[in-house]
Amino acid sequence: MIKFVSLLRRADHLTLQEFQRWWIEEHTPLAKRMPGLRRYVVSLTQAALAGEPEWDGMAELWFDDEASFREGYFQSPEGQAAFADAQAHISRSHRFITREHPVVG
Amino acid sequence: MIKFVSLLRRADHLTLQEFQRWWIEEHTPLAKRMPGLRRYVVSLTQAALAGEPEWDGMAELWFDDEASFREGYFQSPEGQAAFADAQAHISRSHRFITREHPVVG
Repeated sequence: MIKFVSLLRRADHLTLQEFQRWWIEEHTPLAKRMPGLRRYVVSLTQAALAGEPEWDGMAELWFDDEASFREGYFQSPEGQAAFADAQAHISRSHRFITREHPVVG
Repeated sequence: MIKFVSLLRRADHLTLQEFQRWWIEEHTPLAKRMPGLRRYVVSLTQAALAGEPEWDGMAELWFDDEASFREGYFQSPEGQAAFADAQAHISRSHRFITREHPVVG
């Protein structure tokens, strides 16, 4: 299992509240249709520990392996629609592939 | 429940492999002692989606609420020991508090 992490910063024309509402109410219904998606969690930023938050939130998407991820995210029409929707609502992003090590719980 | 997210970049004297080994084998046994910690997952970066990864990994720590987090992380000796150990092994970090919205799974 791999976990894809997507850190997002809202587009300049959106307030934090508008952006977070769009994410939960409009974007997740699209993105959750991606083939091969095993688990999907959005984490909305409340505050940075110090200074201003760099990211307004983070999406985590779990897939069986990197091949399933690339197929669902890049090659499927559902993945492409979700990506285009995200790009229209963000100013920047940082996206990376991880492997999870549960420690507690 | 709140989720604290900590994005970490290794110190210059460590290779990626050394850093990830330290994190899992040496740091998590310290950090998991933090009072009030309900869940704790470390995600080690495999690759960025494009270009170089900005972060070598991410820790996620769940607490009942922000007060429990601040108590466990800042005020407890266990939290202070874990923070000092992290600072000695990283070059930079970005840490923020989130609220999770599970979408799938």
